[in-house]
Amino acid sequence: MNNFTFYSPTYFVFGKGKETEAGHYVKRFGGTKVLLHYGGGSVVRSGLLDRVKKSLEEEGLSYLELGGVKPNPRSGLVYEGIELCKKNNIDFVLALGGGSTIDSAKAIAAGAKYEGDYWDFYVGTPIKDALKVGTILTIAAAGSEGSGDTVITQEDGMLKRGAGSECLRPAFSILNPELTQTLPSFQTACGSADIMAHVFERYFTNTQDVEITDRLCESILLTMIKEVPKALKNPNDYEARANIMWAGMVAHNNIVGVGREQDWASHDIEHELSALYDCAHGAGLAVIFPAWMKYVMHHDISRFAQVAVRVWGCNMDFAHPEVTAAEGIERFKNFLTSIGLPVNFKELGADAKDIPALVEKLGLGESGTVGNFVKLTSKDVEQIYRIATE
Amino acid sequence: MNNFTFYSPTYFVFGKGKETEAGHYVKRFGGTKVLLHYGGGSVVRSGLLDRVKKSLEEEGLSYLELGGVKPNPRSGLVYEGIELCKKNNIDFVLALGGGSTIDSAKAIAAGAKYEGDYWDFYVGTPIKDALKVGTILTIAAAGSEGSGDTVITQEDGMLKRGAGSECLRPAFSILNPELTQTLPSFQTACGSADIMAHVFERYFTNTQDVEITDRLCESILLTMIKEVPKALKNPNDYEARANIMWAGMVAHNNIVGVGREQDWASHDIEHELSALYDCAHGAGLAVIFPAWMKYVMHHDISRFAQVAVRVWGCNMDFAHPEVTAAEGIERFKNFLTSIGLPVNFKELGADAKDIPALVEKLGLGESGTVGNFVKLTSKDVEQIYRIATE
Repeated sequence: MNNFTFYSPTYFVFGKGKETEAGHYVKRFGGTKVLLHYGGGSVVRSGLLDRVKKSLEEEGLSYLELGGVKPNPRSGLVYEGIELCKKNNIDFVLALGGGSTIDSAKAIAAGAKYEGDYWDFYVGTPIKDALKVGTILTIAAAGSEGSGDTVITQEDGMLKRGAGSECLRPAFSILNPELTQTLPSFQTACGSADIMAHVFERYFTNTQDVEITDRLCESILLTMIKEVPKALKNPNDYEARANIMWAGMVAHNNIVGVGREQDWASHDIEHELSALYDCAHGAGLAVIFPAWMKYVMHHDISRFAQVAVRVWGCNMDFAHPEVTAAEGIERFKNFLTSIGLPVNFKELGADAKDIPALVEKLGLGESGTVGNFVKLTSKDVEQIYRIATE
Repeated sequence: MNNFTFYSPTYFVFGKGKETEAGHYVKRFGGTKVLLHYGGGSVVRSGLLDRVKKSLEEEGLSYLELGGVKPNPRSGLVYEGIELCKKNNIDFVLALGGGSTIDSAKAIAAGAKYEGDYWDFYVGTPIKDALKVGTILTIAAAGSEGSGDTVITQEDGMLKRGAGSECLRPAFSILNPELTQTLPSFQTACGSADIMAHVFERYFTNTQDVEITDRLCESILLTMIKEVPKALKNPNDYEARANIMWAGMVAHNNIVGVGREQDWASHDIEHELSALYDCAHGAGLAVIFPAWMKYVMHHDISRFAQVAVRVWGCNMDFAHPEVTAAEGIERFKNFLTSIGLPVNFKELGADAKDIPALVEKLGLGESGTVGNFVKLTSKDVEQIYRIATE
C-alpha cells in the first residue's frame, strides 16, 4: 500500500426532505451571503428551488441566483458567477443540482478568491483558496458532492478539463434520494455508469496488496449491479435510490481509492467524446470503459479475473484465466446494455471518422501518455476508440 | 435506509515514518501547547516517544507529558490530565498509543473544557466542547482514531462506560503500519477481533434494504479473514498490517454503518467482562460475540445465512437456511480460535459463578434492555453468558 493522506471533512445530511434544512447548514458553516447556483427546468418546475429559497429566507440569509448550468458545464457561466460573487461580496456558493452544477459552483468558488483568470486552475495552477461550497444533490453520479474535484468545458475549442483541491470539498452536502426519483431512466443509467467508472478507475492499479480497497471497491460494484435495475424498473423505489446515492458518494470521496495508484485514462478519453458530441458523460464512459478494458486486459489477467469472479459471478477458469477475465468484461458490457446505455460509437451517435480529431484533441502529442495502469500513447488511445466502434 | 448525518473531518496521514510529521500537523490544526499522552513500555523503549517529541520540538511547540495509560483506561489518570490541561493552558491533546490512550486523551480533552466532573459525560451529559485531539496510532483495533467515541473505566466500582460527540473526532490521525509490527500476536489478534466486532455491531440490523452498507461491512470482514493470518504468520508483513490498519479505521468511523439501526449489545455485555477481569476487550468480544449470535440467530435467519455465504464462503442450504446460518457462526468461532483467541469463559479465565454479578453490573434491572437487533433483558444476557461458557 502506498503512503497517503485522506481528508473528507464534508458534513453529509442524508434523507427525505432534507433540502429544507439547507439554510440551517449554510449558517452553521459560516455563510451569510449566498450564490444559489442551479441549472433550470426540473429544479424550478418541481418546486425544489422554491423550497431551498424558503429555507435560506427562514434563516435570514440573503442570496443571489445564477441558473442556467448545462450538462458539461461551460466556462462562460463560471465567469458570470465569479463576477457576481466579487461584486456582491458573496461568501458561500450553494449548488442545487447534479455534478455539472456542483462542478460549476466549485469553479466559481475558486475563481471568486483569485485575481487572475480562473481557467489557470484547469491548466495546472494550484487552487489555494475558495469560497465555501454547499451542495443539494439531485443526481447520483459524479460524486462531486463528496470530492474536491471539478470538471469544466471551455467553449473556446470545447476543451473539457479538470482541477481539484482540498479546499473545494463541500462544507456540507444534502443527499435526498427522493430528488432522484423523477430522473428519466437514461439519466439514472448514465449516472450509474459514472459511479461504476469511478470505482474502476481506482480498481485497476499496479499497486500490490491492497485487499481492503479492492474489497471496498467491489462492494460498491456489487451494490450497483443489484440496485440499478430496481431503480430503473420502479423509479420511485426510494430504497434503491438511497443505496445508489450513498454508493455514488463513497465511490468518489476516495475512501476506497487511497494508498493505490489510480488510472483515470478512460475518463480523459471519454471527456473528448462528451466535449465533441455534448453527450452525457456516463454514456460516453459506457462506450469507452469496456473498450479500454479489452485493450489493457493482458497487462494483468489476474486482476481482471478477480473482478470477473468476485463482482460478475463468473466461474474461475483456472487453466485459462484470460477466458474468465474476458467474460467479466463481457458481463459488464451486457449490464450496461441491459440498463439502456450505448456501448459503441454507433449507439452513442459518434462517428469513427472523428477518431483522429478526438486523439488530436486529447493532446498527448508524440510522447505524452494518459493513464497509469497502462501508460497509453496517442496510438493506444486511437486503438481504444477503434475498439469502441465495434 | 434511515435518514442520517455523517461527519468524519479527521485528516488521516497514513504510511511509513509519518509519526515524525506529528508536530507539523499539530501546528496545522491550531495547537500551540500540547499534552502528550501515552502508556509507557514499548512506546518509550522503541524510541517512538522520542521521535514524536523531536517532531514537536522542531515545530517550536511546547508540551507536557502524561504517560501511564493502561488497557481499559482509568478515570484517575483522566482527572490528572484534566488538571494538567487546566493549570497549563494546554490547547491540544496528542495521543500516542492504541484505543485506550486515545480514549483517555478524548476524556481529558472534553474534561478540560468543562466545569463539572468529566464523568458526567459517561452517564449521559452531552459533550459540547473539547480541546483538539490528534492521534498517533500504534494498534489497529478500537477505531478511536477515526471516531468521536471514548470508553473509560471508573475505578470506583470498576464501571466501564462510553461517551461520544462530534467534537471528539480527532483533528488528525497518523497511521503508520510499521508501528504495529512489534505487537505481540495475542494483541494483534485481539485488535482484529475488535475490528470485526465493530462491523458486526453494524451489520446485524432490523433496517431493510441497506445493500450498500451491507456490502461495505462484508468487504471489511473479507479483508480481515485474508490479512490477519498473514500478519500473525509474519509480524513484519507491512502490507498485511497496512490493510488491517485502514480496515480498522473504516470499520468504526461509521461510513459503513450509516442509515441503519445498529446493535452494540455485545460490546456492552463484553464491557462487564473486561471491567471485572481486566482482560483485553478483543478477547472478551471473541467470547461474547459468537454466543450472542447463537442466541439471536433465529430473529433473522436470512441475515445470518447472508453473512455465512458472502463472508464465510458457506454453501447455501436453500431448504434449511438455518443450517447455513449456524455454519457461518461456527466458521467465525473457528477463525477466532485459529488466530489464538479464547472463545469461551474457561479460555478467557472467566468463571461461570460470576455470571449473576456480571448481569447485575450491567444494570438492566427488571425491565431494561440492551441492544437493538434483539432487545435483550437481564435474563437474555444471562443466557448469553451461559452459552459463552460452552
